[in-house]
Amino acid sequence: MTVVVLTGGVGGAKLVLGLANVMPPEEIVAIVNTGDDFEHLGLSISPDIDTLLYTLSGKANTVQGWGRAGESWGFMAALRELGGEDWFQLGDGDLALHVLRSMRLRAGDSLSVVTRAFAQAWSIGVTVLPMSDDPVRTRLDTAIGPLDFQQYFVRERCVPAVNAIRFDGADGASPAPGVIEAIAGADAILIAPSNPFLSIDPILAVPAIRAALLRASGPVVAVSPIVGGAAVKGPTAKLMTELGLAIDNHAIARHYRAVIDGLVVHAGDPAPADGLLILETDTMMTTLEDRIRVARATLALAESAGRRRSAV
Amino acid sequence: MTVVVLTGGVGGAKLVLGLANVMPPEEIVAIVNTGDDFEHLGLSISPDIDTLLYTLSGKANTVQGWGRAGESWGFMAALRELGGEDWFQLGDGDLALHVLRSMRLRAGDSLSVVTRAFAQAWSIGVTVLPMSDDPVRTRLDTAIGPLDFQQYFVRERCVPAVNAIRFDGADGASPAPGVIEAIAGADAILIAPSNPFLSIDPILAVPAIRAALLRASGPVVAVSPIVGGAAVKGPTAKLMTELGLAIDNHAIARHYRAVIDGLVVHAGDPAPADGLLILETDTMMTTLEDRIRVARATLALAESAGRRRSAV
Repeated sequence: MTVVVLTGGVGGAKLVLGLANVMPPEEIVAIVNTGDDFEHLGLSISPDIDTLLYTLSGKANTVQGWGRAGESWGFMAALRELGGEDWFQLGDGDLALHVLRSMRLRAGDSLSVVTRAFAQAWSIGVTVLPMSDDPVRTRLDTAIGPLDFQQYFVRERCVPAVNAIRFDGADGASPAPGVIEAIAGADAILIAPSNPFLSIDPILAVPAIRAALLRASGPVVAVSPIVGGAAVKGPTAKLMTELGLAIDNHAIARHYRAVIDGLVVHAGDPAPADGLLILETDTMMTTLEDRIRVARATLALAESAGRRRSAV
Repeated sequence: MTVVVLTGGVGGAKLVLGLANVMPPEEIVAIVNTGDDFEHLGLSISPDIDTLLYTLSGKANTVQGWGRAGESWGFMAALRELGGEDWFQLGDGDLALHVLRSMRLRAGDSLSVVTRAFAQAWSIGVTVLPMSDDPVRTRLDTAIGPLDFQQYFVRERCVPAVNAIRFDGADGASPAPGVIEAIAGADAILIAPSNPFLSIDPILAVPAIRAALLRASGPVVAVSPIVGGAAVKGPTAKLMTELGLAIDNHAIARHYRAVIDGLVVHAGDPAPADGLLILETDTMMTTLEDRIRVARATLALAESAGRRRSAV
């Protein structure tokens, strides 16, 4: 059995961790958003890949919601002394990942080769694939002008209203090695409860990935990021309002309609009634047990969706 | 009054600090060896410049003899976990210097511009000039084959016997902006008690710097690194033996003979008697008072040498 997960940051990493606790990690392929990647202080930073690597290796700072547990901050303190740009926090241990990745990318290694090396060093069983080895950069047209993703997300703390979101480079980007094969061979394809517009859309914006999803034989199911009429965290709800969408599962379902067979929604939240398979569960993932529950529910919905595909 | 100091690592930084305590720092120009510079993990590292910046800003770890005081090591621990090369110790605070320098060099800034920015950020009054903005790399032919300087000095701990020392790039290197002007306008030019073969020779190997020293109007005096028939620290004594030299002030005097007017030697050590001006003092620089004493002695010898030049 192979399960593919399209995933972005923290919420997606939680689902992948849950999956890795209910099935052999070796049978899971995570296809990770790289639209948030950026160059900062001359370093190549891949926030979503790193969040997943930290989460799966038990190194994530789960209280803070980003970075490594037990991190020290000597670099940032010295950087500030020297007048360096300090709006993006780089922990001392975290830096090792960025310095090594930057060195290897400059030497000609691809992002997927570097990512695999990190996963192996930390004995991560899940296959972690960047969506593409080509640079794709999420950019937002906002009330204060165009912003790179990290400028919007970290430096401006998602305050500026967003008019439009672009994924520069996506049109010409090739899927990373293994991405298309994993989708084509998957028994189930899951879309994590990451931000649909900022974390999942960049993946869907790579033409060959979208095409592979549309012709995949395995069922595709998403976990809605909406809980109780709001988003669990991050700018999802604010962004949906700015994009003229209602903050509900109908909007999520419409957004993913072309690619999904089913949607996991938070118990009690209104569910769309347009032919999508729906499974209700508590989708809040606070504890490991929560993550396992959501993983099981998502796999169960995928199984139903698979049966329905076979029956058609 | 302007005093120029040719300097390498720790010993040289001590003399410059002593000088900065007995005269206005703004009247001191340090011309620093860059033969030890290297690229490591994709970062541009300038050990001798950094040692001087740390020393003059009060940030140096004087117990350890290199790096910053109060340093943390989260980066190295994480680097090791990832299988990165860990023979060169990079403290978390130290990294800020290397990351910013690497970024700015890649963006096209020169090493001297970057060095000046760091010195300004830390309110260092002494003018700190790299000997050259062009790469000069000290390489050693050793019993185990050719080695880059840091491979020899740090990774191999100076164990392999040295047959020859080369300064790749020196022939074609231009002095950094300000170097020639400082030498030409100096009231005194001091050669710090740094390793003559590894720290000072790379500076003298830049043809225009050597020529400027030979035609300088100000007197040139060196501080001998020999104390009690041995070198204070580092590989100087071992290296002199391997190069077939006696470990004494005669050998030092012969080595510098073409460029110096005088030599400061450690009190009690045999002094060369070949017409060089000699001043004896305790040249061990353990405390700040020691550094001030050696700085005063060196300035005094330079003054004598200047008077002799005028009398000729």
